[in-house]
Amino acid sequence: MPGIGHKSAQRLAFHVLNMSDAEITEFSEAILNAHKNIHRCSVCCDLTDSELCPVCENDTRDRSVICVVEDPRDVMAIERTREYNGVYHVLHGAISPLNGIGPEDITTKELIARLGNDEVKEVIMATNPTVEGEATAVFLSRLIKPLGIEVSRLAYGVPVGADLEYADEVTLSKAIEGRKRI
Amino acid sequence: MPGIGHKSAQRLAFHVLNMSDAEITEFSEAILNAHKNIHRCSVCCDLTDSELCPVCENDTRDRSVICVVEDPRDVMAIERTREYNGVYHVLHGAISPLNGIGPEDITTKELIARLGNDEVKEVIMATNPTVEGEATAVFLSRLIKPLGIEVSRLAYGVPVGADLEYADEVTLSKAIEGRKRI
Repeated sequence: MPGIGHKSAQRLAFHVLNMSDAEITEFSEAILNAHKNIHRCSVCCDLTDSELCPVCENDTRDRSVICVVEDPRDVMAIERTREYNGVYHVLHGAISPLNGIGPEDITTKELIARLGNDEVKEVIMATNPTVEGEATAVFLSRLIKPLGIEVSRLAYGVPVGADLEYADEVTLSKAIEGRKRI
Repeated sequence: MPGIGHKSAQRLAFHVLNMSDAEITEFSEAILNAHKNIHRCSVCCDLTDSELCPVCENDTRDRSVICVVEDPRDVMAIERTREYNGVYHVLHGAISPLNGIGPEDITTKELIARLGNDEVKEVIMATNPTVEGEATAVFLSRLIKPLGIEVSRLAYGVPVGADLEYADEVTLSKAIEGRKRI
């Protein structure tokens, strides 16, 4: 399991062994239920325990903007900003030819299917600022732009509260390149 | 001294004690000379050991763009990107009323003096993405804009190579806000 080394594993194993019968039954059922009940939202592919995820279910969200992310955790990160009011699409990965992950291995088809009606005006590519995330953003934008929908990409730049001195060269040159009039 | 704790100090002290007479003379002279010969460039206020700093001396640099930074180390950081071909202005600090640092304590006057001729077309505010850096950028932009010179600010956004999941809320919402069409 990620982040669990030899010693942590041992500690957790002994903790499980020390549980009472009732506790251990409840624990194993919780794990089973989580696995059984959590599935992908039928619209945005985010994980949920009901038919639609809370965002897709929410009538006040702006359905004309779709924010495309790699992972359900990215949805949670963007929700924490409390600034975004559109809906999401979770790819469950990024295109990475080196690792054998192609467009058919992520939810490309589901995304394109959502763009069929005229409701969507903009797709924000919020894939990670890495080589794979960038490649995925470019690949998807080439599919989406011919549909007459605006595609945008998260801004690269210096993180708020950082120190220029410690910014890496690529980020710093992106920050200069993307400078804005004030 | 910054970053030198008790143990490092002791180690360095013993190292100095173990130097030969010739070495220790050379070492102390090097320190004295550095202090005597390094001063501010008469144009951009960066630190240099000659009249002008290497950037101001370089005829191939574009004098129509001035990049304003807080610290000489920021000049080095931006130079490392090898993307910027304008000149610099080093403020030697940022405005911070809480710490009693006002516009007169940084090189505001020297900056404004440089904008007198018509050569300068744009001033890029590359102060740190902190409260003080932001306040300094806003303050200076209010002085400079009436002169008819364009003022821009470094882009805020996600650093290249990062993971969205770990980006802080403010940076992430700036990255969404500053998204670009692709």
